[in-house]
Amino acid sequence: MSTATQTTRHTAREGYDRDLRVAVLGVGMMGQDHARRLARLTKGAELVAVSDVDAARTDAVAAEFGVRALHDPLAAVEDPDVDAVVVATPGFTHEDLVLRALGAGKHVLCEKPLTTSPETSRKVVEAEHALGRRLVQVGFMRRFDAEHEQLRALVASQELGRPLFLHSVHRNATTPPNFSSEMLVLDSVVHEVDATRFLLGEEITAITVLRPGRTSHAPEGLQDPQFVLMETEGGTLVDVEVFVNTTFGYEVRTELVAERGSAQIGLGVGLVRHSAAGWGGAIAADFKQRFGAAYDTEFQRWVDAVRSGAGVDGPGVWDGYAAAAVCAAGVESLRTGRRVEVDLGARP
Amino acid sequence: MSTATQTTRHTAREGYDRDLRVAVLGVGMMGQDHARRLARLTKGAELVAVSDVDAARTDAVAAEFGVRALHDPLAAVEDPDVDAVVVATPGFTHEDLVLRALGAGKHVLCEKPLTTSPETSRKVVEAEHALGRRLVQVGFMRRFDAEHEQLRALVASQELGRPLFLHSVHRNATTPPNFSSEMLVLDSVVHEVDATRFLLGEEITAITVLRPGRTSHAPEGLQDPQFVLMETEGGTLVDVEVFVNTTFGYEVRTELVAERGSAQIGLGVGLVRHSAAGWGGAIAADFKQRFGAAYDTEFQRWVDAVRSGAGVDGPGVWDGYAAAAVCAAGVESLRTGRRVEVDLGARP
Amino acid sequence: MSTATQTTRHTAREGYDRDLRVAVLGVGMMGQDHARRLARLTKGAELVAVSDVDAARTDAVAAEFGVRALHDPLAAVEDPDVDAVVVATPGFTHEDLVLRALGAGKHVLCEKPLTTSPETSRKVVEAEHALGRRLVQVGFMRRFDAEHEQLRALVASQELGRPLFLHSVHRNATTPPNFSSEMLVLDSVVHEVDATRFLLGEEITAITVLRPGRTSHAPEGLQDPQFVLMETEGGTLVDVEVFVNTTFGYEVRTELVAERGSAQIGLGVGLVRHSAAGWGGAIAADFKQRFGAAYDTEFQRWVDAVRSGAGVDGPGVWDGYAAAAVCAAGVESLRTGRRVEVDLGARP
Amino acid sequence: MSTATQTTRHTAREGYDRDLRVAVLGVGMMGQDHARRLARLTKGAELVAVSDVDAARTDAVAAEFGVRALHDPLAAVEDPDVDAVVVATPGFTHEDLVLRALGAGKHVLCEKPLTTSPETSRKVVEAEHALGRRLVQVGFMRRFDAEHEQLRALVASQELGRPLFLHSVHRNATTPPNFSSEMLVLDSVVHEVDATRFLLGEEITAITVLRPGRTSHAPEGLQDPQFVLMETEGGTLVDVEVFVNTTFGYEVRTELVAERGSAQIGLGVGLVRHSAAGWGGAIAADFKQRFGAAYDTEFQRWVDAVRSGAGVDGPGVWDGYAAAAVCAAGVESLRTGRRVEVDLGARP
Repeated sequence: MSTATQTTRHTAREGYDRDLRVAVLGVGMMGQDHARRLARLTKGAELVAVSDVDAARTDAVAAEFGVRALHDPLAAVEDPDVDAVVVATPGFTHEDLVLRALGAGKHVLCEKPLTTSPETSRKVVEAEHALGRRLVQVGFMRRFDAEHEQLRALVASQELGRPLFLHSVHRNATTPPNFSSEMLVLDSVVHEVDATRFLLGEEITAITVLRPGRTSHAPEGLQDPQFVLMETEGGTLVDVEVFVNTTFGYEVRTELVAERGSAQIGLGVGLVRHSAAGWGGAIAADFKQRFGAAYDTEFQRWVDAVRSGAGVDGPGVWDGYAAAAVCAAGVESLRTGRRVEVDLGARP
Repeated sequence: MSTATQTTRHTAREGYDRDLRVAVLGVGMMGQDHARRLARLTKGAELVAVSDVDAARTDAVAAEFGVRALHDPLAAVEDPDVDAVVVATPGFTHEDLVLRALGAGKHVLCEKPLTTSPETSRKVVEAEHALGRRLVQVGFMRRFDAEHEQLRALVASQELGRPLFLHSVHRNATTPPNFSSEMLVLDSVVHEVDATRFLLGEEITAITVLRPGRTSHAPEGLQDPQFVLMETEGGTLVDVEVFVNTTFGYEVRTELVAERGSAQIGLGVGLVRHSAAGWGGAIAADFKQRFGAAYDTEFQRWVDAVRSGAGVDGPGVWDGYAAAAVCAAGVESLRTGRRVEVDLGARP
Repeated sequence: MSTATQTTRHTAREGYDRDLRVAVLGVGMMGQDHARRLARLTKGAELVAVSDVDAARTDAVAAEFGVRALHDPLAAVEDPDVDAVVVATPGFTHEDLVLRALGAGKHVLCEKPLTTSPETSRKVVEAEHALGRRLVQVGFMRRFDAEHEQLRALVASQELGRPLFLHSVHRNATTPPNFSSEMLVLDSVVHEVDATRFLLGEEITAITVLRPGRTSHAPEGLQDPQFVLMETEGGTLVDVEVFVNTTFGYEVRTELVAERGSAQIGLGVGLVRHSAAGWGGAIAADFKQRFGAAYDTEFQRWVDAVRSGAGVDGPGVWDGYAAAAVCAAGVESLRTGRRVEVDLGARP
Repeated sequence: MSTATQTTRHTAREGYDRDLRVAVLGVGMMGQDHARRLARLTKGAELVAVSDVDAARTDAVAAEFGVRALHDPLAAVEDPDVDAVVVATPGFTHEDLVLRALGAGKHVLCEKPLTTSPETSRKVVEAEHALGRRLVQVGFMRRFDAEHEQLRALVASQELGRPLFLHSVHRNATTPPNFSSEMLVLDSVVHEVDATRFLLGEEITAITVLRPGRTSHAPEGLQDPQFVLMETEGGTLVDVEVFVNTTFGYEVRTELVAERGSAQIGLGVGLVRHSAAGWGGAIAADFKQRFGAAYDTEFQRWVDAVRSGAGVDGPGVWDGYAAAAVCAAGVESLRTGRRVEVDLGARP
């Protein structure tokens, strides 16, 4: 909510000493979530505009966040009061939008896919390379998942030896209408492609997509599930079960099998390792590790409450008093060895 | 990093349409962590000052964050350019600081304990009550932990019937120097006191602190571990193992036992329930639930990278291109049933 | 089903080179299960007689197993064709039966309790001591549970240091009619008493039984749940939640907390340890460890099938043939790198 | 150790009312284990002879168990005092031994493989079929593993819909000398072949064996690991990671993925199911389910101890007395609400 003055440093090349002014292009389900994130959570970002091919939706979302509605995404990219854009429009529009942004020297966070074909993606690679500056980031969010980061670090450490296999599953409850067998590769498997490259730090050299028996819960004509085999430069074999009409839940799991042990993520318990020492995981080192996210939430909700005029969103003084009273009784019990009753008196 | 204008709405009573200007009082380990959180993560907050009894530390931390160093915490509380304070000083100073803040109409997020005795805490309760406004929040961060929230909701739903027991463990690797048996109650058990009140929504009516055999790893004179029994208004029995010199790790676990089932948190797998349906937990409903935190991190790191001038902190265009190339080969394999090789060409 | 000859060695003092002739006294639910065990599973035992206060039940069970029905348990104890008795009658009868067995020089496996009072149990201790021979074993079956044995071994190893706590839960779905608050101690807690002594190798020096709020699912007048605290010679504090009307399931869990780590059993995953190395368990060393019980079952079921005239109870020659055909195709695929189809032909 | 009389019923066709007289052919590691099982554990079986190509080993094992040493396995098969044989000799000898046994009307439990080629296995199928009696069982022990049985029952129930995938891993620490890439299929994958047929109740129609990168811990020339794909009549795709030089541990896991849910075994926690109800497993219904194996062990060890002359192998009268004393104090505490001390007096 800051008001940037015109005299501050702000060029893309040098960085910004004020909040980054971001427009979200495409405010369907995903784009709206990103707009909310930028407006409410991302420190240092100011959501300044939204844009969508659906004008009514553009206006509604703009009104919700109190930002400008831009009806032409291409214009949004070139708007002088926009520093950076989040591209959350359908994949076929990405090439044009990203190339325009590069042309305008704007930063881009582009939802996957970068573009819909290797040829057009290569064109973006060349364009950014020609500029000599890195302006485009692609939205493979798994790289920011703590468990994926732990598994990548384990591979990099070479502690378990060379990776031999990655076994993955990728499951969704249902698919949207008109989802095709090809889109299952382009929209779902694409995450496994990037996760493989991220975890192993290697390029993929071959891919095989098998068509097992179809689930009766998939729409007519959709080959679901699929079983994908990928091979990497270093000789790791990657297999992926992709199954997107399970009728319930969302599950993403990966097991690394290396020469001297294995490790799984996606079980919900952090990284679980199997090695000569047995199976198991790490214990939090301290309260910051265990409750770091709780502290972050506490502070965000407190500041939001104070700014909204509510003042408090969490335990208040009565809670502080009750704790003090019970603890004082506890200290007395510690000293006497006896049960001590607590009487808080009337609450004001 | 916003620059608040004097004409914006900003009184505590009405809320703020600009960033909240926060000072952190006490910048030891905990306070520095909070300063960093406010400066780098909490949207809508502006860290404006820090204060500590140690003047050199105050100056160093102020310099790190580019904010004012205030050498008198009491003055900081009354500073007209400070809207709110985080109190992270030693417990014995809390009473004075919080009462001053109430006097000055400032918002407070006060680390536990609120004050060091029931009498002084009660004085704060009365003072806030007299003001007629809620200005003070107490830093019991477990209330913001997702698992604690899930367990509280389960109790509130009455789905498993009336709570009969809470079994808790609270373990730390080591204690700081000069930690006493009483401090184990006042600093550690205090979290269990608040967690009990939060989870059950009831006051505690009696407490007994037992002294089992001491660990040989505790400093001379420290009664560690302790075993605490608490009784609530509703008849729930709460037992807590407090053991703060385990030599490794940090573990906080709670098991609710109710009339028709039990549920555990702190295992690292979310809430695990035992009921007539068996034992188990919930599966993420969708990718937002599973990867929501990853998206938050992705956006924060991207904005930080762009503002710093780095441009990208995550997958770039080459990664987008590689994914597009592998997926295109995957679609070909899907159609032909054959293994398809991938050649990315040279990287620019 | 062996026929012992009179010339074989067979005195209790020297052991037996033929099957042990066992009578089961009391063939209610528990005793019938033991009769079946002796008749069908226990190698080296021959079930020769059953006895019960209910004559019709005695006759029915005797007929089922093809053994003698003895209507007077006291006579059964002294029968010259009985080497040993399993006592599964109600607790109040144990004193008399066990003392008679000692008098007759018969071996006894006595279900818990040994007798119903310390005084009468002490009398049995003295009587066996006077005989100078060990004839009586008590049915605390947890000592034969693999997990309890692992936890006992961990304590004995002193690897995690001195034990500080045992935290246990003991849960049953429901109680039989006329179950009293005292029986909850005598019939349920008794297992925790013996488990504590077994795991720690120490005597218990004090006990406190707390009465928390009652579950609405317990019969009128029954104090369920209870919370039991026990102290041992060595200073370990043992707490036990006993809750016997949970409405579902049977759960027995124990967590050891020692100076440098903790370990849990009863989670169904073997012993899970928390220590400086993290949390986790052991991986089976080999197939004998993993599938040892499966081999035992396979052999028992095969021998039972052959003796019954069925011949086979498990995979037969067709299964062996199918496996050979698939593996031969697998070897061809391994050599050629190609998918190989399998055709089994018609089954005879 | 029974002594069969000549007048009892005993033909293979009609069954046996005395112990089955079994010879173990091949007493290497596996055969010795089976000999011990038959001699010490399998009720209704009498180990009467052992045979091995290594005469010294034959004599040593025969002496250990007090049974006959037969130096010619083929003669053993036809020995009139042998009712049944366990074939644990090398695979290439199986065809001859099993056909001889069929000729002699003897029962056979044949370790896998039945024979080493589909053609010879087919010959055994025809031979047994011609006899009109089932005499041969094949040693696929996984069918007797409780978890495999649970998973098979889940498939059969069709509760989760049609099976789409089985994902399996099969890991060994090391391989014996001279283990070849083909043996990895014939000796390891063979278990997955039978498990697949057992779990799904379908024949396998095609197999593909992939050769991923080799572990550096495998002996020169051995393709380890391998990745096996199998297809079934019903369209289920089965993938198996076979990795037999992991340097530690033994791991066998299988995950079923069906139309409306998945289930895993081999995690050590019984069957874990993922479905619309969440993830989780079953809780033991009662103490027989939880401690059934402990009771079996208790009885076997007690009978062994009594037969050996030791008298007791487990808790004795002192343990019964101590439990009675603590429980009596517990009842007093229950009544008075007070801590009660326990004094056992001197142990005789």
